[in-house]
Amino acid sequence: MNNFEFYSPTCFVFGKDTENKTGEYVKKFGGTKVLIHYGGGSVVRSGLLDRVKASLDANSIAYIELGGAKPNPRSGLVYEGIELCRKEKVDFVLAVGGGSVIDSSKAIAAGTVYDGDFWDFYQGKRIEEALSVGTVLTIAAAGSEGSPDSVITKEEGMIKRGASGDAIRPKFSILNPALTQTLPPFQTAAGITDIMAHLYERYLTNTEEVEVTDRLIEGLLLTMVHEGPRVIEDPNNYEARANIMWAGSMAHNNMCGVGRSQDWNSHNIEHELSALYDCAHGAGLAVTMPAVFTYVMSHNVMRFAKVAVRVWGCQMDFEHPEVTAKAGIEAFRHFLSSIGMPGNFKELGAREEDIPKLVEMLCRGDGRDGTISGFVTLNEKDCTNIYKMMV
Amino acid sequence: MNNFEFYSPTCFVFGKDTENKTGEYVKKFGGTKVLIHYGGGSVVRSGLLDRVKASLDANSIAYIELGGAKPNPRSGLVYEGIELCRKEKVDFVLAVGGGSVIDSSKAIAAGTVYDGDFWDFYQGKRIEEALSVGTVLTIAAAGSEGSPDSVITKEEGMIKRGASGDAIRPKFSILNPALTQTLPPFQTAAGITDIMAHLYERYLTNTEEVEVTDRLIEGLLLTMVHEGPRVIEDPNNYEARANIMWAGSMAHNNMCGVGRSQDWNSHNIEHELSALYDCAHGAGLAVTMPAVFTYVMSHNVMRFAKVAVRVWGCQMDFEHPEVTAKAGIEAFRHFLSSIGMPGNFKELGAREEDIPKLVEMLCRGDGRDGTISGFVTLNEKDCTNIYKMMV
Repeated sequence: MNNFEFYSPTCFVFGKDTENKTGEYVKKFGGTKVLIHYGGGSVVRSGLLDRVKASLDANSIAYIELGGAKPNPRSGLVYEGIELCRKEKVDFVLAVGGGSVIDSSKAIAAGTVYDGDFWDFYQGKRIEEALSVGTVLTIAAAGSEGSPDSVITKEEGMIKRGASGDAIRPKFSILNPALTQTLPPFQTAAGITDIMAHLYERYLTNTEEVEVTDRLIEGLLLTMVHEGPRVIEDPNNYEARANIMWAGSMAHNNMCGVGRSQDWNSHNIEHELSALYDCAHGAGLAVTMPAVFTYVMSHNVMRFAKVAVRVWGCQMDFEHPEVTAKAGIEAFRHFLSSIGMPGNFKELGAREEDIPKLVEMLCRGDGRDGTISGFVTLNEKDCTNIYKMMV
Repeated sequence: MNNFEFYSPTCFVFGKDTENKTGEYVKKFGGTKVLIHYGGGSVVRSGLLDRVKASLDANSIAYIELGGAKPNPRSGLVYEGIELCRKEKVDFVLAVGGGSVIDSSKAIAAGTVYDGDFWDFYQGKRIEEALSVGTVLTIAAAGSEGSPDSVITKEEGMIKRGASGDAIRPKFSILNPALTQTLPPFQTAAGITDIMAHLYERYLTNTEEVEVTDRLIEGLLLTMVHEGPRVIEDPNNYEARANIMWAGSMAHNNMCGVGRSQDWNSHNIEHELSALYDCAHGAGLAVTMPAVFTYVMSHNVMRFAKVAVRVWGCQMDFEHPEVTAKAGIEAFRHFLSSIGMPGNFKELGAREEDIPKLVEMLCRGDGRDGTISGFVTLNEKDCTNIYKMMV
């Protein structure tokens, strides 16, 4: 195991009706003037926004609003939010929504107290300072409610990049599984896929002797395999929603990823798809992961065999471990299909003829040197092959 | 799943040579005058105390020392520590040692800023305020390095009781697995047992639909089953030590215990043993748990069958689940014996004739009403029966 620091000071407030405690927690973490940031009209129509506001009112906390955050959140709205926060002397950004709203909120929080262009952080500069961030989560997926990360798409060139820093880790996150019950099945499934991707990205490691984090990841994957189909079958199953929601947060606060190298190639390869086609990130991952895993499987057959046996219940083929490894990938592919995720470019709305452009953006964008690195290092030819496998 | 709040702001600093960062982290968390609290001479002889002091010196942090904390830490030294901290205007208590030293440090930290007798906290008063606490951990066992809990024994009557409060949660904990390599095998095994007990106490729940926390607990138990025998065989196995150490912290920061009722009957039943005989807490648990589990198994046979199948690799007997449940308990008993833990009163140094006294302390001490409650409620007759099963 490698040396590491693990610091996850987010206060998770979990369960039914917990959104009514929002004001209490904003106050506890020192917020006095809040920007409520959200996406489309669903949080308005459902009455959630009103309940959050009532809670802020009850705690005598002033607030302003900024709606309009989109899936694959854009830099334009971030600039707008930064200007608004500065003008209105906001000291707390409250995200009410899913990963996109939270990531947009984090970018606003960091940008408001930064002299330069906030995009610097998305080109590798570490975020050291930010307004406080809190969240009221409406979809179990991104794990952004407990992570120090944010992903934003720059409209100029549709470049999708990530930034990081403990300063943007939410001070608190309100997790009410009931809020996710109204999600359409496709979004629920995309969330499930994203959570499983966060686990696989950590599972694919080159660090040896990491049994404890392997076991934690496997435990969370097994939870998803069990609970995922239950919420697809019955969207109102609160208990299944609850198990998925806690798994989603634990999958990405890095408790199960410490002390080991991680992959993230699938995320990088997918980011170009959702940037170009504006598809759901989880849906893009559903198409990407089986292709990537198949392509890199030979790098460590036993690792793929391990997850096949321990998570997917495959029988170990001791003479031909690669058969087991492959069976695990196919079981995952079948699972994704069974919850309604796309399986190829066509179902995703992607086009084969764009592959050269995708590879260019992926391997050469933002000054990259023609490769991406994770579990294995992939060059332009590799990435072309992988995208072709998804067609 | 029940509603819950999960807040675990301890900064874990994990890996080789990390004790040399102690001063840096004391400074980061605002300490200016430190009480270094430790136990016997081993931290002195090993040079650890000198390395910690050198790190404090390098960061210009003043310190005083208080050694002498014992296993099953006593109230007498806590009073001494409180007086010392007040006199010397200490603002940070640094525990260098295992669970006992940490628990003693937490009691000193809470008592120093409290007007009344610190023992009030161990009779049910919640700890709301305390000096900051940090730890340099030397044994993977108690999980106190990431918990808001402390257990102290009052010398008058040898009463062992626990206290709790977020204020005593360590600000940081330095976890260097190499520091645990010099532990005698018996202490290592007692630590392994304590970690597994923290997992079982959470596993035995009356809350339904808690798959995610079940899976996390099972993952950590599986880690212990795999890594435990490896460190007993080779005490210098750093990698196995590292996996156990992280499992120990994750077993008790409550990440895997949220949203569910928990047991803790085994801990309560054991506390009377270590209070009376001053035996190692883990050794006491090794004798206690199989007896308690056997006694309460019928309360939820399927839960015991689940851990038997998923952790101990037992075949499910679908016609007679109680056979599987029992096999899992016996597998655990055999595991504990295989790592050198005692299996009965005699091996532990306990006496059958003391059972009435143990039961009296357990069920009537500190104003208890004749029962203890957890997974099941146990009265004096039940507790007598359980102690008798350990003979």
